[in-house]
Amino acid sequence: MLDAVLKSIDDNIGASLDRLFQLLRIDSISTDPAYRDSCRRAADWLVGELAGIGFAASSRTTPGHPIVVGHHDGPGPHALFYAHYDVQPVDPVDLWETPPFEPRMVTRPDGRKWIAARGAADDKGQLMTFLEAARAWKAVAGKLPARVTMLFEGEEESGSTNLKPFLAANAAELKADIALVCDTSMWSRDRAAITTSLRGLVAEEVTVTAASRDLHSGMYGAAARNPIHVLASILADLHDAAGRVTLDGFYDGVPDVPPEIKRQWAGLDFDPAEFLGDVGLSIPAGERGRSVLEQIWVRPTAEVNGIFGGYTKPGFKTVIPAEASAKVSFRLVGDQDPERIAQSFQAFVRAGLPADCQVKFISYGGSGAQRLPLDGPWLPRVARALADEWGQEPALVGAGGSIPVVGDFAAVLGLNSVMVGFGLDDDRIHSPNEKYDLTSFHGGVRSWARILAALGE
Amino acid sequence: MLDAVLKSIDDNIGASLDRLFQLLRIDSISTDPAYRDSCRRAADWLVGELAGIGFAASSRTTPGHPIVVGHHDGPGPHALFYAHYDVQPVDPVDLWETPPFEPRMVTRPDGRKWIAARGAADDKGQLMTFLEAARAWKAVAGKLPARVTMLFEGEEESGSTNLKPFLAANAAELKADIALVCDTSMWSRDRAAITTSLRGLVAEEVTVTAASRDLHSGMYGAAARNPIHVLASILADLHDAAGRVTLDGFYDGVPDVPPEIKRQWAGLDFDPAEFLGDVGLSIPAGERGRSVLEQIWVRPTAEVNGIFGGYTKPGFKTVIPAEASAKVSFRLVGDQDPERIAQSFQAFVRAGLPADCQVKFISYGGSGAQRLPLDGPWLPRVARALADEWGQEPALVGAGGSIPVVGDFAAVLGLNSVMVGFGLDDDRIHSPNEKYDLTSFHGGVRSWARILAALGE
Repeated sequence: MLDAVLKSIDDNIGASLDRLFQLLRIDSISTDPAYRDSCRRAADWLVGELAGIGFAASSRTTPGHPIVVGHHDGPGPHALFYAHYDVQPVDPVDLWETPPFEPRMVTRPDGRKWIAARGAADDKGQLMTFLEAARAWKAVAGKLPARVTMLFEGEEESGSTNLKPFLAANAAELKADIALVCDTSMWSRDRAAITTSLRGLVAEEVTVTAASRDLHSGMYGAAARNPIHVLASILADLHDAAGRVTLDGFYDGVPDVPPEIKRQWAGLDFDPAEFLGDVGLSIPAGERGRSVLEQIWVRPTAEVNGIFGGYTKPGFKTVIPAEASAKVSFRLVGDQDPERIAQSFQAFVRAGLPADCQVKFISYGGSGAQRLPLDGPWLPRVARALADEWGQEPALVGAGGSIPVVGDFAAVLGLNSVMVGFGLDDDRIHSPNEKYDLTSFHGGVRSWARILAALGE
Repeated sequence: MLDAVLKSIDDNIGASLDRLFQLLRIDSISTDPAYRDSCRRAADWLVGELAGIGFAASSRTTPGHPIVVGHHDGPGPHALFYAHYDVQPVDPVDLWETPPFEPRMVTRPDGRKWIAARGAADDKGQLMTFLEAARAWKAVAGKLPARVTMLFEGEEESGSTNLKPFLAANAAELKADIALVCDTSMWSRDRAAITTSLRGLVAEEVTVTAASRDLHSGMYGAAARNPIHVLASILADLHDAAGRVTLDGFYDGVPDVPPEIKRQWAGLDFDPAEFLGDVGLSIPAGERGRSVLEQIWVRPTAEVNGIFGGYTKPGFKTVIPAEASAKVSFRLVGDQDPERIAQSFQAFVRAGLPADCQVKFISYGGSGAQRLPLDGPWLPRVARALADEWGQEPALVGAGGSIPVVGDFAAVLGLNSVMVGFGLDDDRIHSPNEKYDLTSFHGGVRSWARILAALGE
């Protein structure tokens, strides 16, 4: 039966791509209120697709964007599949080679093909790999090998504010045997990966206010406090000369990496020079004495993701602005406590503030780091399905990004998550010219068809 | 005759205001190419007004915005009057209480009246004080007491790129006995001022580039260089703990203030606490051991006027941007060389740059500091005219801002400038809710009528 399903996937890949392109044309940017209707349209579109396959599907209202839920019976265990239909903003839009919401199949000079669009990889392409695998099973076998619930969120790129309350309110409906989370990457173009650890995230916006209004720098220059100077000094002090974060208590709860894990990593064909060279860099910028893999997988970080103040348009304006702002995020590992990190950051900013300046914070929420237990019935089955599809064992890796839903599934539903995805390092997610390889999409659909079969055994 | 001219000014002040409002309605923002047509309309409007009074006037084409020149014969010496018709941008526009280009006469609870609009004080209101004084002389006496050339620039707020070449190309036409420059302030609402020294200006934009594209901070965080961090560190190092600028050779050519000048300043009724308190501050931010008057009049400064990088819109985006930029300006005094300061700044930035980052600069030009000789025939006449109008001797002051044209007049035309203006410290020039007091405008027109008479004696 599996072979027939795989053949059906191959025969109908064009129609699968057409449906993905329909979803990619919806500009469902969740962080910007201007795109609210687009997010609703994406949710409604997904409900229609799920219903068309035979799922009992509905779009659920939340205080933010809707959450889509679809149920389908099956003989095997109950798998809860999670993905998100919202996407990141597209600025700077002038750096896109093709319009972000007009998906194109691009053929590269070497014959490689990819789908270029915002959300192609993060996360609409990944979402559709699973949905199309389920469609193929239904078309060929008339049923699914396992009981499946699909859960599609619309606020993953804007803090997932409403997901955890939704899980709590619908825990009986959503409780399953295992969660499948599809928002991660392959090890390489021909080797799959299962992500077994994730960093947490704390996101804070800080605004420093000095004078009560913008001032002319000729009239007030030097005498009046410049909030850009204040903010720059504070941010410059966030790291010491060795690249360590200077917040009080920041490294509390950060575990050492066990020697056997370091040995396993040493066996991976990871080239730090190539990893950085791919994006035009050559010098690791993180903590001195830590390898690049440690820096991006298991060490906590502090990054300024945005800064703005004063006159920023073309030309020059000799203004001393009234205020300056920055968006700062922290990646957490081990047992670092998101709330304590946020408090420590706020205290750090206040300590660097002159007496006649004020500061405001906006907290965009936080989540702790997650680790998947390697023992249990599900990981070996998923690993075998991926090995069958790609011809080699999947890599078991850490991930630097945060997928807060994994923590929420554990905390609210008591559920472990198997994180499998088919993205690649050069997908440019969150950047202009995001893309998803055709091999990722096609191989992803086939992989999920195999995983569904393996779960049902 | 002067009394009749002053009476005519008083009788016709409403019509003078109507004309000023016409000019204020033109959104002649010179730094933003989107307002190019508006700048041309402002120039054409001025040509029409000058011609209407009897000046031989024309709008002269430059590679940027036009320069307006008008000539009128007279028996006395030849005075070259300078002002500018362009204005600063208006952002943040949501902080304006009334639309910036819809001028209003505002009456305050205490009866004080002012004209609210972008450019009301800087510099359209000031420009019109002189033009209306000339109009009154012509209307009453049929002639002017002195020979007058008016020169109105349209690029003062965007670097005056084309003014100096224009002066050089038209030196024979523009050469006069004295220049009158109207872009400065009164000492207080009832005491005029003559500005005898000006700080120079160097303006530079710096862009630091790290990776070849925007990166996801979860995937690359810590390992990839963040250009916001690099820029913040460099800017934080621009000043030392004592508030001194750290650029190599920055203080070369900075003179000490003579004790007698310090004594004269001590006699001025200047309250540093009130000066800072007016804008919500309490702690002088400049060099330790220098008074606030020193800091704003005769000490050089470094100010970051704008900074931007990464995601700056509402919400949060966990991006490590490819680049980050800042606009930085320096106020110069004494013999500080603008070119050497710009070079020293660029060297300073390069010295703080990691090896795999790049930097680009945009130079917005520079000008040295200026000082008006106190001996000569013109200053006493202007001072007497101002004393007659305001009932007390004008203050002779330094100014923190830059008026590059004063240096250009000296260098190209061999001309000294008497700087007189009727702005007030609370005019909010370059800020939202710019205004010009009715007493400034009305008293300004009357003052220029008196100065014209005094020059012709």
